[in-house]
Amino acid sequence: MTAARPDIAGCKAALAGLDIDDTPATVKQKSRDFFWYSPVLKARMDHLTADFVVAPRDADELRRALAAAYAHDVPVTTRGAGTGNYGQAMPLAGGMVLHMKHFDRVLEIAPGRVRAEAGAIIAGIDRQTRAQSGQELRMHPSTAQTATIGGFVAGGSGGVGSIRWGGLRDAGNLLSLTLVTCEAEPRTLRLTGDDIHKASHAYGVNGVITEVEAPLAPAYEWRDVLLGFDTWREANAFAYALGHQDGMLLKQLCTVAAPIGQNFFKRHARFIGPHDHLVVAMAAPNAMGALDAFAARWPSARVLFRSDRDATEGLPPAYELGWNHTTLRALRVDPSITYLQVLYGEPTVEKIVEMAEVYGDEVPGHVEFVRFDGRVRGMGLPLVRFTDEARLDAIVAGHEARGCPVFNPHRYTLEEGGMKQSDPAQLGFKRETDPKGLLNPGKMIAWDDPDHDFAAQGFYLFPGMAAQ
Amino acid sequence: MTAARPDIAGCKAALAGLDIDDTPATVKQKSRDFFWYSPVLKARMDHLTADFVVAPRDADELRRALAAAYAHDVPVTTRGAGTGNYGQAMPLAGGMVLHMKHFDRVLEIAPGRVRAEAGAIIAGIDRQTRAQSGQELRMHPSTAQTATIGGFVAGGSGGVGSIRWGGLRDAGNLLSLTLVTCEAEPRTLRLTGDDIHKASHAYGVNGVITEVEAPLAPAYEWRDVLLGFDTWREANAFAYALGHQDGMLLKQLCTVAAPIGQNFFKRHARFIGPHDHLVVAMAAPNAMGALDAFAARWPSARVLFRSDRDATEGLPPAYELGWNHTTLRALRVDPSITYLQVLYGEPTVEKIVEMAEVYGDEVPGHVEFVRFDGRVRGMGLPLVRFTDEARLDAIVAGHEARGCPVFNPHRYTLEEGGMKQSDPAQLGFKRETDPKGLLNPGKMIAWDDPDHDFAAQGFYLFPGMAAQ
Ligand SMILES: Cc1cc2nc3c(=O)[nH]c(=O)nc-3n(C[C@H](O)[C@H](O)[C@H](O)COP(=O)(O)OP(=O)(O)OC[C@H]3O[C@@H](n4cnc5c(N)ncnc54)[C@H](O)[C@@H]3O)c2cc1C
Ligand SMILES: Cc1cc2nc3c(=O)[nH]c(=O)nc-3n(C[C@H](O)[C@H](O)[C@H](O)COP(=O)(O)OP(=O)(O)OC[C@H]3O[C@@H](n4cnc5c(N)ncnc54)[C@H](O)[C@@H]3O)c2cc1C
Repeated sequence: MTAARPDIAGCKAALAGLDIDDTPATVKQKSRDFFWYSPVLKARMDHLTADFVVAPRDADELRRALAAAYAHDVPVTTRGAGTGNYGQAMPLAGGMVLHMKHFDRVLEIAPGRVRAEAGAIIAGIDRQTRAQSGQELRMHPSTAQTATIGGFVAGGSGGVGSIRWGGLRDAGNLLSLTLVTCEAEPRTLRLTGDDIHKASHAYGVNGVITEVEAPLAPAYEWRDVLLGFDTWREANAFAYALGHQDGMLLKQLCTVAAPIGQNFFKRHARFIGPHDHLVVAMAAPNAMGALDAFAARWPSARVLFRSDRDATEGLPPAYELGWNHTTLRALRVDPSITYLQVLYGEPTVEKIVEMAEVYGDEVPGHVEFVRFDGRVRGMGLPLVRFTDEARLDAIVAGHEARGCPVFNPHRYTLEEGGMKQSDPAQLGFKRETDPKGLLNPGKMIAWDDPDHDFAAQGFYLFPGMAAQ
Repeated sequence: MTAARPDIAGCKAALAGLDIDDTPATVKQKSRDFFWYSPVLKARMDHLTADFVVAPRDADELRRALAAAYAHDVPVTTRGAGTGNYGQAMPLAGGMVLHMKHFDRVLEIAPGRVRAEAGAIIAGIDRQTRAQSGQELRMHPSTAQTATIGGFVAGGSGGVGSIRWGGLRDAGNLLSLTLVTCEAEPRTLRLTGDDIHKASHAYGVNGVITEVEAPLAPAYEWRDVLLGFDTWREANAFAYALGHQDGMLLKQLCTVAAPIGQNFFKRHARFIGPHDHLVVAMAAPNAMGALDAFAARWPSARVLFRSDRDATEGLPPAYELGWNHTTLRALRVDPSITYLQVLYGEPTVEKIVEMAEVYGDEVPGHVEFVRFDGRVRGMGLPLVRFTDEARLDAIVAGHEARGCPVFNPHRYTLEEGGMKQSDPAQLGFKRETDPKGLLNPGKMIAWDDPDHDFAAQGFYLFPGMAAQ
């Protein structure tokens, strides 16, 4: 539906006075995210680049940028920090990269909530809410130190904190979004309640988010804990049981199969043996006594590391051993490694063990435990020793055939990744906010090809609005 | 095992100078709790009374009292506020009531925890932690305004807050207990980790708790919400689904069948129609937007009352419509009413509806939704229109036969109530702390009758230490 030819020069001229960069090296750099995590996306997206980068300094300049894009039919790819790893932030059709770096203020901190501009770095928000109120965001991606809150809402799903609060998809984990439309006269809209999901996890296809209002939880001096187990089964059984302990406040809980820890967690390696299957957890100080007692009841459990006991200098926080940081650490050592995203069926621990048995060392295990629809579930981000695309597809199919749906991180469209079908609320909203289809074109199949057949895919990770 | 004859006079003489009361009217009053909730217990316990009440002013006096009891073979029943409703605080063998009213100080408030003396009133603790730190206890009984923290730990199970944190039985919901033994020279012990469960929910049979250390959660201006539904099924399906919403922070969640609300919730009655099946919830302010959106998706859901919209003057807090306050309100109108405690089997909503269909108006529905072993479960406190004990027993048996275990509130022993079997850790600990068996004698079957046959009861609500 992006019919007319973009008039790049006209658009740039209309934006005179704004913070614009068209140095090819910079534009190329700001046109890339962590798509290269996927050998599949790398092969297809490496060449992509926009025409120029504009970084509006305030809402007026943002509206000017969007009006100019509209007038000159220029595609717009909004950019936070570019840490997305499905190529979400890659401009498929060139045009403008709309960089949100100047939208970096925390606007309001109140009991139980914070309002921040979309380009604010997540860890920076937490530092301010902590200092001012002893609170912090309920959840953040493991990229919190670099990623923006707007990029997280538009491109992410959950992460550190999801063992307690579920994901961004869960009602209540976002309070409001403010966004600007791409029209002749861009409008500013505020979304609350179910409407939030029209624009969350939409890759910016239906508006540029300028403000995010999110709930806060109490900030604790979280303790990082690494436990070792003799078997992959016991590590996962432990984590699954621990996740059900309602009285022990956790912020993060994952398992990592041996020898991932020793081979890839370079700075923690001295604590980890080659045969240690790991549980990596972050627990509130008031949970530590109960956690010790709990661990003592497991046959092979041993506490390898505790941040309140061992020297922590030079060590990354435990959450940077989890989520896609596990993959990142493996990739750095062995560039042939990639990964998958798997929701293990029930019984969870059995399914996790079954997949490990089927795929062995080709798919080393890594499972994030999260609350999902009110239940503790295992969300796998197993490593994959990549050989070729056909084999990767076969591994995906093999998981799905065994009752473990895969949210394919080797796809850059909303629907082929976590969505698994088009979201009518997001699509309808796009008609209102982006009538010319200029926002992040090519990421929403349903817009480009309304007749696309999303043959019964069975599972749908990001329902815009959960039906009863 | 309480062999020797108590020497009451000798004991009182040894306690000269302490705060002692032996006025028969006072002694009788301090020998009673809410046992009369149960017509069964009322028939059996109404006559019970101790010989005198002693209220130690500090730890020294407490040790003196316990040493004197030991020396003179005098039974000791520790008393908080006497709001227990299984006759836990009723002296079965006369002797001393040990009143904890002078142990009423909050000792320490820190991020994530509080330490208080056992006789401190729960609501008073919350007032202090709120004022000083914006925190509050994770959970409290609906009797928070009168009950003591020590009585809650020794005699209670959970309540308001259990939809988020589970119960007192869950590891992490108590951090430490300090208690004093009943020996020639009473010792002071501090229990942490799994050892806590040796003395929690032990009715004071194995030590007098002097201090409780408990975790704190953030304090919010909780919103009271009453929703009405056309059917009992929909009200419960709604509550069950709401309980699974990980992103909506709730403190309390229960359902009450029509016409309980209109008939018995006198001060809220003007908001409630005769056919309204109720959901009563307490939600954090940051959950209200999501809750509105969530409710809008249910066919008959209507918001009858919101404390942030409607006048609240003269109304009790929503939690005083739940737990045993539901029963209390019914009893005040119709003294023939009593109640049960039922853990509904799975699928929960079906079981709740099934029981309502089987027993109809004889057992009007009231279900508290709680986290139980990491899952949302329906914990019923249905009203029962009492006719006779045989019929009551038949109703209990009928529930159990249909997969809904009953924790019989018409029994005063640990094992016949929630325990369902004897707890070896509690029993072993009693041997150490109370060698003469003077503490609350008669409440622990396993002590009095080690050979008692706890024929396979199937379900065990208060495992002292959960095995893996
Ligand atoms: C090592 C590693 C670990 C990761 N861990 C996690 C994790 O734990 N959980 C998780 O969910 N994700 C994770 N991710 C993915 C990603 O880092 C996060 O989702 C992150 O929050 C993205 O933020 P960003 O600012 O980098 O967004 P970007 O990558 O810049 O953008 C992401 C998407 O959002 C759009 N967008 C950005 N800003 C806006 C805006 N203001 N308005 C509208 N659209 C916008 C972009 O167009 C793009 O489609 C990880 C990635 C890596 C590389
Ligand atoms: C209307 C109503 C509503 C209720 N709601 C709830 C609820 O929501 N959740 C719940 O769990 N319970 C509930 N209960 C039961 C009871 O109110 C609570 O468990 C309450 O916390 C008991 O505290 P108390 O100070 O009154 O204890 P008491 O009744 O005085 O004592 C309870 C038991 O603990 C022992 N004990 C007391 N203090 C000590 C001590 N310092 N050391 C050792 N042993 C001690 C006593 O001997 C007795 O066996 C309710 C009761 C009523 C009447």
